[in-house]
Amino acid sequence: MSQPGNVVIGQSGGPTAVINQTLVGVIQAVMADRTRFGGVYGAIHGIQGILDGKFCDLGAEDPANLEVVAGTPSAALKSVRLKPTPEICKQVLARFQEHNVRSFFYIGGNDTAETTHIIDGMAQASGYDMTCFHCPKTIDNDLRVTDHCPGYGSAAKFVAQAFMGDNLDNRSMGGIKINVVMGRDAGWLTAASALARIFPDDGPHLIYCPEAEFSLERFAADVLAVYRRLGRCIIAVSEGIHGPNKAPIIDLGEVDSHGNKQLSGSGALGDFLADKLKAFLAKAAPEKKHRVRADTFGYLQRCFPGVTSEVDAREAREAGRAAVAAVQAGTRSGSIAFRRLPGDAYRIETFVTSLASVAKETKCLPRDWLNVAGNDVVGDKLLPYLRPLAGVLPAIAQLKMVPVQRATAR
Amino acid sequence: MSQPGNVVIGQSGGPTAVINQTLVGVIQAVMADRTRFGGVYGAIHGIQGILDGKFCDLGAEDPANLEVVAGTPSAALKSVRLKPTPEICKQVLARFQEHNVRSFFYIGGNDTAETTHIIDGMAQASGYDMTCFHCPKTIDNDLRVTDHCPGYGSAAKFVAQAFMGDNLDNRSMGGIKINVVMGRDAGWLTAASALARIFPDDGPHLIYCPEAEFSLERFAADVLAVYRRLGRCIIAVSEGIHGPNKAPIIDLGEVDSHGNKQLSGSGALGDFLADKLKAFLAKAAPEKKHRVRADTFGYLQRCFPGVTSEVDAREAREAGRAAVAAVQAGTRSGSIAFRRLPGDAYRIETFVTSLASVAKETKCLPRDWLNVAGNDVVGDKLLPYLRPLAGVLPAIAQLKMVPVQRATAR
Repeated sequence: MSQPGNVVIGQSGGPTAVINQTLVGVIQAVMADRTRFGGVYGAIHGIQGILDGKFCDLGAEDPANLEVVAGTPSAALKSVRLKPTPEICKQVLARFQEHNVRSFFYIGGNDTAETTHIIDGMAQASGYDMTCFHCPKTIDNDLRVTDHCPGYGSAAKFVAQAFMGDNLDNRSMGGIKINVVMGRDAGWLTAASALARIFPDDGPHLIYCPEAEFSLERFAADVLAVYRRLGRCIIAVSEGIHGPNKAPIIDLGEVDSHGNKQLSGSGALGDFLADKLKAFLAKAAPEKKHRVRADTFGYLQRCFPGVTSEVDAREAREAGRAAVAAVQAGTRSGSIAFRRLPGDAYRIETFVTSLASVAKETKCLPRDWLNVAGNDVVGDKLLPYLRPLAGVLPAIAQLKMVPVQRATAR
Repeated sequence: MSQPGNVVIGQSGGPTAVINQTLVGVIQAVMADRTRFGGVYGAIHGIQGILDGKFCDLGAEDPANLEVVAGTPSAALKSVRLKPTPEICKQVLARFQEHNVRSFFYIGGNDTAETTHIIDGMAQASGYDMTCFHCPKTIDNDLRVTDHCPGYGSAAKFVAQAFMGDNLDNRSMGGIKINVVMGRDAGWLTAASALARIFPDDGPHLIYCPEAEFSLERFAADVLAVYRRLGRCIIAVSEGIHGPNKAPIIDLGEVDSHGNKQLSGSGALGDFLADKLKAFLAKAAPEKKHRVRADTFGYLQRCFPGVTSEVDAREAREAGRAAVAAVQAGTRSGSIAFRRLPGDAYRIETFVTSLASVAKETKCLPRDWLNVAGNDVVGDKLLPYLRPLAGVLPAIAQLKMVPVQRATAR
């Protein structure tokens, strides 16, 4: 067991709707053990705040307000995207030593796990006795080991509801509609669009994820086939779709601090695909004008207030508590993961996995959860996994629409 | 009083979250008066369905299912965008005569009111005894006479929640964010972004509506001023912004990679503004790299399931009932409008206004509800009007963030 001392909590990476549930889970569990933990400090803007010495006293927070913070989307401690170089991590550790920080909880995705992993390694190597825990958070659902990630269920719910509404819109107005969904490497969030299907012929009619190679020619042919059959077509496209050898479909040129290409915050991919479809249809089906539109869901899908999965919120809180429990149980470091328990009813348990097992790498949708053509999910595999995570969706009904041959005069 | 006979109900124009509340309001009120009304028929795809003889028997619908339909977004009878030429309206009237239709209820915006107006005029001119009513519906809130339009409150709630989430995202991550909101002629929906402001310095920090002339130079200077003060900036931009003499902000020559003049279903305006800002900031503030992103809310904002204003839903139902009541009271034709009653508590009453008073024209945001600079709303004027329509918004809280000078060692 590591020495008692102060606690630092930070949040990193993109926001989710439930990231503060995890924060509050950690705060509450730490505050409940005053013999084990000293001061409880929030690092403002993650490791950037640690470097700059910007901490706030989480012990001074009002418990009732903290509950509302838990239900508020996006990192309450503010976030950071900073590549964890050895030099930066060394400085972070020096700050921890300076402030007698003996427990570090860092909430984020695989880059955050990597940062935590490096700091943990340096602390061990230098003989500084502290615990380092990563709490999972990502709408992308792409962390290894865990069954699923806090944040994903709520984003999946948003995407499902967005496609439900768009399907109703498209059903009423006709035409072709492309919706671009977040997901650089993994199609988990794009696949969640399948939850929107309730009645036969409901969209999305086609789903394209990064796990299957994308071809503009096959895409156009797929859309035309649906459009000819139904008079309409809704398409879910992941922002991360690519051709052979990861060749980008379009290239915007901008790169973030982790070396990732900017995909979101632009409508370029959707507009490009819509233009290509218009040109294709003008040739393939010149008999009429075709209505083709594209929406890019963008940042709305990460943390939309009021669209939160109850299950996701509860589990995100639990992930924070579990990290503190692991420290109390004498574990030095790790990342919290979920395991789905056997049985018909959905139940999970938490466990600790090594930081190395989660850091850096991503977990994609299994290829066989997509169909062979790579233009749809395999519902029997995806939906039993996904439904409990997104939780209850709004009720949708259609009119029976009993045809009238001829209105009778009275 | 017109002769008893059959009833036709139709829906037209873009969808809203509550358009089926109005439909079900009409159906229920008509079905409750079997001495006054005969068969109750739905025109599938509005006047297109009437022309094609595509009707469904709304009397055959299950009442419990009808309640779920009422809560389902987008036109359950399917919609249409068809310019009502005199020839088309003549054919519609002929169909009505053929089917002994004596009551027509048409749910939609100002084009729908215009169609209803033309048909009403032709019926009167030809001595055919029937009633013609328009029930208001538009997320744009741009119908004349009425205090506000069913559909607007729910769309305003979506826009408010979207900006609440995006403000939290931007507060956590920093940078500049442009969000493009629907509204070709009127800024009502874009102005609703102001509902997202809860804490000091919350976004949107700038709001641009079509009612004020837009200048790229002033826009860039406005953004830079906010960005220098807060380190971040969120901007609400109506898709209908324009320069002097209604000159469009983008045209085909300037953005040929995704250029076309359609406003929605494309990210072109947002991407254009983001590119202009990036170029401006690279010159005006070259000391660092600036993160500029744009989202176009697109079709999501029209009819997002699960984000509905309770007030809007109730009033939309009432608009349908009021139209039937007007027929029962012996009124030949008109459009249903809302009047806000005096007093502190929000209350409305419905009344009938002439079809001519609503047809074709639009009602803009009063210019003095925007500030003189044209880059923000005047909250004292807009918010008391708007708050009751959008209804309850999600609770949002911030940490107190009591600064820590130095963590104490234990």
